[in-house]
Amino acid sequence: MEMHISLDRKSRVPLAEQIQLALAERIRSGLYQAGDPLPSVRELSRAIRVSLMTAVLAYEKLEATGYAYRHHGKGTFVRIPSSEKDEILKNINQKNSYDWQLAIPDYLGRSMFRHVGAVNRKDVKYPLHRIKLHTEELLPIQHFQRALQQASSDRSSIGDYAPAAGDEALRIKLASLFQHKSSALTASELLITTGTQQAIDLVARTFLGPGDLVAVESPTYPGALDAFRSRGVTLIPIPTDHTGMRLDILQQLCDIHPPKMIYTLPTGQNPTGSVMSIHKRQTLLEIAQSYNTLIVEDDPWEELYFEDLPPRSLFSLDRSGHVIYMKGFSKTIAPGLRLSVIAARGSVYQRLLHAKAVTDLSTPLFNQRILLHLLEQNMNEHYYKVRGQLKKRRDEIHQLLKRHAPSVWTWTLPTAGPFFWLTSTVGVNTDALFVEAESQGVLFFPGSFFYSGNSESSSLRIGFATLPESQIHEAILTLCQLLHNIDSN
Amino acid sequence: MEMHISLDRKSRVPLAEQIQLALAERIRSGLYQAGDPLPSVRELSRAIRVSLMTAVLAYEKLEATGYAYRHHGKGTFVRIPSSEKDEILKNINQKNSYDWQLAIPDYLGRSMFRHVGAVNRKDVKYPLHRIKLHTEELLPIQHFQRALQQASSDRSSIGDYAPAAGDEALRIKLASLFQHKSSALTASELLITTGTQQAIDLVARTFLGPGDLVAVESPTYPGALDAFRSRGVTLIPIPTDHTGMRLDILQQLCDIHPPKMIYTLPTGQNPTGSVMSIHKRQTLLEIAQSYNTLIVEDDPWEELYFEDLPPRSLFSLDRSGHVIYMKGFSKTIAPGLRLSVIAARGSVYQRLLHAKAVTDLSTPLFNQRILLHLLEQNMNEHYYKVRGQLKKRRDEIHQLLKRHAPSVWTWTLPTAGPFFWLTSTVGVNTDALFVEAESQGVLFFPGSFFYSGNSESSSLRIGFATLPESQIHEAILTLCQLLHNIDSN
Repeated sequence: MEMHISLDRKSRVPLAEQIQLALAERIRSGLYQAGDPLPSVRELSRAIRVSLMTAVLAYEKLEATGYAYRHHGKGTFVRIPSSEKDEILKNINQKNSYDWQLAIPDYLGRSMFRHVGAVNRKDVKYPLHRIKLHTEELLPIQHFQRALQQASSDRSSIGDYAPAAGDEALRIKLASLFQHKSSALTASELLITTGTQQAIDLVARTFLGPGDLVAVESPTYPGALDAFRSRGVTLIPIPTDHTGMRLDILQQLCDIHPPKMIYTLPTGQNPTGSVMSIHKRQTLLEIAQSYNTLIVEDDPWEELYFEDLPPRSLFSLDRSGHVIYMKGFSKTIAPGLRLSVIAARGSVYQRLLHAKAVTDLSTPLFNQRILLHLLEQNMNEHYYKVRGQLKKRRDEIHQLLKRHAPSVWTWTLPTAGPFFWLTSTVGVNTDALFVEAESQGVLFFPGSFFYSGNSESSSLRIGFATLPESQIHEAILTLCQLLHNIDSN
Repeated sequence: MEMHISLDRKSRVPLAEQIQLALAERIRSGLYQAGDPLPSVRELSRAIRVSLMTAVLAYEKLEATGYAYRHHGKGTFVRIPSSEKDEILKNINQKNSYDWQLAIPDYLGRSMFRHVGAVNRKDVKYPLHRIKLHTEELLPIQHFQRALQQASSDRSSIGDYAPAAGDEALRIKLASLFQHKSSALTASELLITTGTQQAIDLVARTFLGPGDLVAVESPTYPGALDAFRSRGVTLIPIPTDHTGMRLDILQQLCDIHPPKMIYTLPTGQNPTGSVMSIHKRQTLLEIAQSYNTLIVEDDPWEELYFEDLPPRSLFSLDRSGHVIYMKGFSKTIAPGLRLSVIAARGSVYQRLLHAKAVTDLSTPLFNQRILLHLLEQNMNEHYYKVRGQLKKRRDEIHQLLKRHAPSVWTWTLPTAGPFFWLTSTVGVNTDALFVEAESQGVLFFPGSFFYSGNSESSSLRIGFATLPESQIHEAILTLCQLLHNIDSN
């Protein structure tokens, strides 16, 4: 197994520890499997240009933390902490015809998502890790069926490709819906993508490379961290409070090392559910303008707020093309279609369009036409209804947590986005808690997923849109019982 | 405008010429627009680490070939050969608020596709550049409508995401359909992607990086060249004959510099329409095994052959995980869905799966369910019918070309894939011919699109599946008239 590990040779973190952390992360994310052979110390030192001593030290640390296992005379092998030794030994001794493949270097970073990623595991009773809207209770199924009828009656939707930028009729419709964001916005400034993950990844592959600095809210959406990491950038975590990114800290960073890009979720910050004030939005934009930094504004929850209407988007305040705006439709309308739109200007738009063509030529036309016909119906009533129902769920959970969660746990009431972010004030390791919860059919995302570092976390995110409403009471009580059990251990 | 240009400092091609060619290609592909400012000589020399003299020389060459324009006291600007000077001057003098964006470095290679990429231009009378099946005459619309009914009656198709690997039911169905390829194939070795372009791009981003060698058939599919280029690899063009890649030349290359990957279209080679014999397939696989090279086998035309049944796929012959197989369904069943599947084994599969999750989480579930229900119907009759109709079109065009094309043009009769590859024996520049043809409403792909180098070409590709059958006669006669006109110039 060869690998590319980006080392920061100027960092105060010793190289051996950087290697250990990089390897541990690849193992935790499921990229390396139990029993996979690691390169020999000599190979490792040659591949990533470190001394033999550093390589030895890195493996010793990896062993000490339970992520590696030495098999005398055969080398060092991947181990998953808490998995059975038998399984590992079985794998080590099983030589197969694909072993040569492990000598092919790859360019992977991490992909935390796959770990819990199995979306419909049958052993999961309470999928609190998910945040998509419950199909029957919250998605606009009737609207969808009508839109589908219209799309399928037009044979070109079935029989043709879309242009790289996306279906023109859809882009025109979106430009008119976005008039409140920016009155001068035209269809030629919009780019349709296959979900927001693709939108983020397109931005990353177009503008980011090794050595670039990217400022991210900490904690933030793990899929964005994966996409940025895959380009070898240095992530700068900016702490958040109940109004989002700490701009005082961002400003300090910019004075020393202006980042090339700032990734933010100003409305319904994931996972904390905060909404950034208009004042902070203006300041953030001014910072970006002063340092000629790109802002990536990810806005899936615009319509799903629980208090006041959220302030205007950063994109709508921007006059100089610093903001790349992205809005997904999976969250609020139709997950099965996987559609998002990027709004951007000038050469930044042109370059994203080229990257899109190289990535997959274009997003499926049929899906775009269904979305077009969905948006031609008035969706405001749908949003209004869903807001009400989600707010009811939110308030119920808030009450349940107040009554049943151990007192050492705190949380913020989300003002947009259907998720709670719970934190233990006594430092419970939620990675360990996850294993326990999983065995009881309860899933959540451990806090470590949302941080750019490799650190353990004592937070966790639970989503409240995916379960049927009738199960929420029971799910939260089960979770609280788990929290009590871990506290008393 | 800053840029990253990969220079090969060991090459016999002078650096200035490498820079000139790289810039010209970005301009020809439409990435840089007329009037865009190029970096100053000083900036260029600093950005890509060449001497000032080399930068000056590169710009002089660029000017000499018509791709740049010096504006005294303002710098050097992009020019599109044959476009109007007025337009360029207008752009130069128009300063706008997005100009700062040109200072953002990007990591783009080329994307030839966008150039002619507007799929449904209304000014095009004969879209001979396209190769998709004509919707009413050749696509299985009735089957599609039935499949759509079934997919939309299941609400989970609409309301949920697919797993990163793709819908399990679809993968199980495909594994059973692929039994003739490989009897031991399981659903867990299949990965659903959003079209074959994404499949190729996933392979590129996972396994390729700067300095890697990739052997490609020459000419070949331009989308693959774009994806490989975007990773900074060195492309090694291997000439083709009427049976595909010249393995004697590949073997010579391997003896000196074994490539990391070989990309091939053994059935319906694009653009030449050739089919590789079973003997050559076995030899190619042996070469890959000897040098531990990955083969990427792109197989969109498996069912659309015009003579004998094509030999078994490379994937079906492979016992050691050297072949990454990809099959698109856009070409033969439903372009609007944009679906393909990758078959791969061992850790190569695992790593592609991770890359897929980072790229876009998963391909739309709804589309996958429609394809599932399409494949549950028997599609063999459809393939049989389309083969017959395409063969009829092919033979008609062959006769028309024999009768009406100037005698200095040659072509190969395709044995799979709906396209002809025409070559002028007197060296007509088909880039220039393209401009002339476009003005008369006839589109084709000039040969230069299909080569990894920057060279002009005297070949062109015409597709015969997209037009209605009734227009073929007229389209070919119009094209032949154009070829006559250019010959007499």
